[in-house]
Amino acid sequence: MIFNLKFTSKTHKKIQIENYIKNLIETGILQKNEKLPSTREMSLLLDVSRNTIIDVYETLTNEGYTDTIKGKGTFISDKKIISKESHHLPWIEFINTHALDAASLDTTKHELRGTDDIIPFDSISPNKNLFDIDEIKRDFLNIISIEGNNILNYGYAKGYKPLIDYLKIYMKHKGVNIDNKDILITNGFTEGFNIVLSTITEKGDTIFCENPTHNTSLKIMKLHNLNIKGIDMDDDGINIDSLKDELEKELPKAVFLIPTYHNPTSIVMSPEKRLKAIDILNSFNVPIIEDGFNEELRYSNSNITSLAALNSSNNNVIYIGSLSKILFPGMRIGWIMADKELIDYLESVKRSINIHTSFLDQAILYEYLRGENFSKYVRKAKKYYKNKYELTMKYAKKYIPYAKIWGEGGLHIFVQVEGIHSRELLANCYKKGVAFTPGDIFYTDDKGYNTFRIGFSRASEAQIKKGFEIISKAISELKAK
Amino acid sequence: MIFNLKFTSKTHKKIQIENYIKNLIETGILQKNEKLPSTREMSLLLDVSRNTIIDVYETLTNEGYTDTIKGKGTFISDKKIISKESHHLPWIEFINTHALDAASLDTTKHELRGTDDIIPFDSISPNKNLFDIDEIKRDFLNIISIEGNNILNYGYAKGYKPLIDYLKIYMKHKGVNIDNKDILITNGFTEGFNIVLSTITEKGDTIFCENPTHNTSLKIMKLHNLNIKGIDMDDDGINIDSLKDELEKELPKAVFLIPTYHNPTSIVMSPEKRLKAIDILNSFNVPIIEDGFNEELRYSNSNITSLAALNSSNNNVIYIGSLSKILFPGMRIGWIMADKELIDYLESVKRSINIHTSFLDQAILYEYLRGENFSKYVRKAKKYYKNKYELTMKYAKKYIPYAKIWGEGGLHIFVQVEGIHSRELLANCYKKGVAFTPGDIFYTDDKGYNTFRIGFSRASEAQIKKGFEIISKAISELKAK
Repeated sequence: MIFNLKFTSKTHKKIQIENYIKNLIETGILQKNEKLPSTREMSLLLDVSRNTIIDVYETLTNEGYTDTIKGKGTFISDKKIISKESHHLPWIEFINTHALDAASLDTTKHELRGTDDIIPFDSISPNKNLFDIDEIKRDFLNIISIEGNNILNYGYAKGYKPLIDYLKIYMKHKGVNIDNKDILITNGFTEGFNIVLSTITEKGDTIFCENPTHNTSLKIMKLHNLNIKGIDMDDDGINIDSLKDELEKELPKAVFLIPTYHNPTSIVMSPEKRLKAIDILNSFNVPIIEDGFNEELRYSNSNITSLAALNSSNNNVIYIGSLSKILFPGMRIGWIMADKELIDYLESVKRSINIHTSFLDQAILYEYLRGENFSKYVRKAKKYYKNKYELTMKYAKKYIPYAKIWGEGGLHIFVQVEGIHSRELLANCYKKGVAFTPGDIFYTDDKGYNTFRIGFSRASEAQIKKGFEIISKAISELKAK
Repeated sequence: MIFNLKFTSKTHKKIQIENYIKNLIETGILQKNEKLPSTREMSLLLDVSRNTIIDVYETLTNEGYTDTIKGKGTFISDKKIISKESHHLPWIEFINTHALDAASLDTTKHELRGTDDIIPFDSISPNKNLFDIDEIKRDFLNIISIEGNNILNYGYAKGYKPLIDYLKIYMKHKGVNIDNKDILITNGFTEGFNIVLSTITEKGDTIFCENPTHNTSLKIMKLHNLNIKGIDMDDDGINIDSLKDELEKELPKAVFLIPTYHNPTSIVMSPEKRLKAIDILNSFNVPIIEDGFNEELRYSNSNITSLAALNSSNNNVIYIGSLSKILFPGMRIGWIMADKELIDYLESVKRSINIHTSFLDQAILYEYLRGENFSKYVRKAKKYYKNKYELTMKYAKKYIPYAKIWGEGGLHIFVQVEGIHSRELLANCYKKGVAFTPGDIFYTDDKGYNTFRIGFSRASEAQIKKGFEIISKAISELKAK
């Protein structure tokens, strides 16, 4: 590991070796009683004559750096080790406010989580057992045989072209006018939202969103130091009058909306409201950031037209898509579809962050999407989650003395119970074996204290029933207090 | 796509349908001459009686929204389409200074690049033909059979545990004391460096680095709005006296160093200098960010001890590792090894950026690294690049009237030619079929104007010879001017 001395031509080699070893001893790299290599070994290591090494070792011992024990070798003495203060950095003093905020908003670290023994109503991850692993294997082998080594080398910040082209057509089929639009591939929705905010907002800028809203998005907006204005929701989406009022008070840099299976309420914004919201936001020339994360999980037959599609003739919708709620979230692939001019900047920001998203993963996903099994899979997943959704609703209504239940699909429902504090309820339930997500983390104000989100994607049917029985009991206990 | 009306119980359905379709017409969603579904189809779509639809269509035609043509159907008229102003956002006005900087520092967009017809001396990407694609196939199939669907679902921000554990041992074998250290997996070096700066630096903070330094790192430091102080280099690494002088003037938040096959100079910092730099930086309690990107590409037999290993008893080295210069950069996997306390914060920042790095890729890489072929591959790659390095040096020395050539290994050499401007040289060479990287993009000041980097990883032997002949000719032409 050490003794990797590079000689310069300016000084005698003996001197260079001496100084080098002295430094190793003084700085404590070579420690007390450590044995130096034999003179023969050292002469081979450094590629100098053995006599030079013998001279060096003699000097070192004469000057007190080493002790030579006849027949045993040369050992480091502690006379010349410069006793050093420890330079143990107190890292906490180096952590900036951004990172302190990131840590304090890191729910994974602070919230109670489902485990093998705790019913995981806190999770809205897809059920891994639905993934078609054999299909993935075929896709991988196909893509390797098509792309070969190319797929393993550096790619492009915008993404893997066949995947981009596929997603353009995919969005077109969903009604989006793709003229003058482009796509940037990101590491999931989270990175997409971060890149958009990094590009169009600055510290202190105002952003509007629904209240409540997706907790990770709320965290990201907070970490960008934005002035977050939550707009209350009706049962069919954001309250249009409030939106108008707020727009008249202050023009935000952007409005973030989750029109389809909103998180946490699962509300699907009505078509009329979509049109009204677009009309108003267009008239104020405000960019709309649309989170399309759950769009594929439509249980009913009716199609839901995205804001990006409804507002196709304009260029102010930034659509962030992801298939992570149904397909392979472990791969972390999402996309941003927006005006070409904007994508060009987003691309440079993406390149500065991590060069590009894994080309291997993008290629596998492309191969999967273009195959016939994708639509089959979506049908299977919808059927599976629809069944769970109905069961969840049934038990929620049966067991919970709710003031309100929201839920039209997706992977979760949202519940409000009067007279309780959901964190107190969670603490009680957790002891009994259930985790869920307390509603307060979704709110821009303190309105959510008596709400909670129930994710059913990873809970079995038996767990769903048992989970609600436990919550019901815990509510009774809290109310009896 | 449309006609996805959700009824409320408050109003008669006929009115709701009327208003809904009127809105679609007024806002231009339904366009002139478009045919409405037949009354029978519409009654099925909306699940209302056919008579209601007949009533609605009659009203629409009476009010001028539609024209009914007997036996043909009901068509949208243009009388009620509200002609709207276009709300075409001028995106450039929304782009913040960060994104404008990212775009202007985006060399991929602005620099001349190698192509199929242009000798790619600008590239230091690994040669894809060295990748062992069959091994990757085996690793993928192995990991799928071991991990199954797990590997496709959400993972953890810190990374895939078997890979983390592997890398800990790997770093330990390189002499790093891993007690109280931890590892965070990132999307390559670029993301790792971004995460570190996002955690410990703030706008206006001072950071030291070698001058010249890695251009992408320089871009990242600029995008973090840091006050960058470049410290000149000697032939064996950073100038220690200058480092000391600058430290005495101003304490930086961190020092960024590339001790091994420095980019762009390819200098390997001498062991004595490593110890001296560590000593000084420890005494000032300054964090050291070590870029270990090229450490695996050692052509000589001697080992090079990283700063992380030499300074193992302290906790101030943040080591950012990557195998992208030899293995599969398309996967974008790197790691940060640092004090546990710091990694805990870096992990929260990573989670806020993109949740985690692809678990599929991490698992494939782990499977590859733990196999026997990794060390075989590294030997093969070293031999291949060593050969090219020697050829590059030979022709550089033969053809270029250099003032100085730096280069001890890695995938590039760095050249200084008196009396030329390397951008002018590049413009001339590009016309003749050669791209290289002008030196100015590596410098924190204007010293690099007559330098350039020659990357040889992707050039063939014939291209290396031809490339230098062209550069030689271009230099003569410039000097003759």
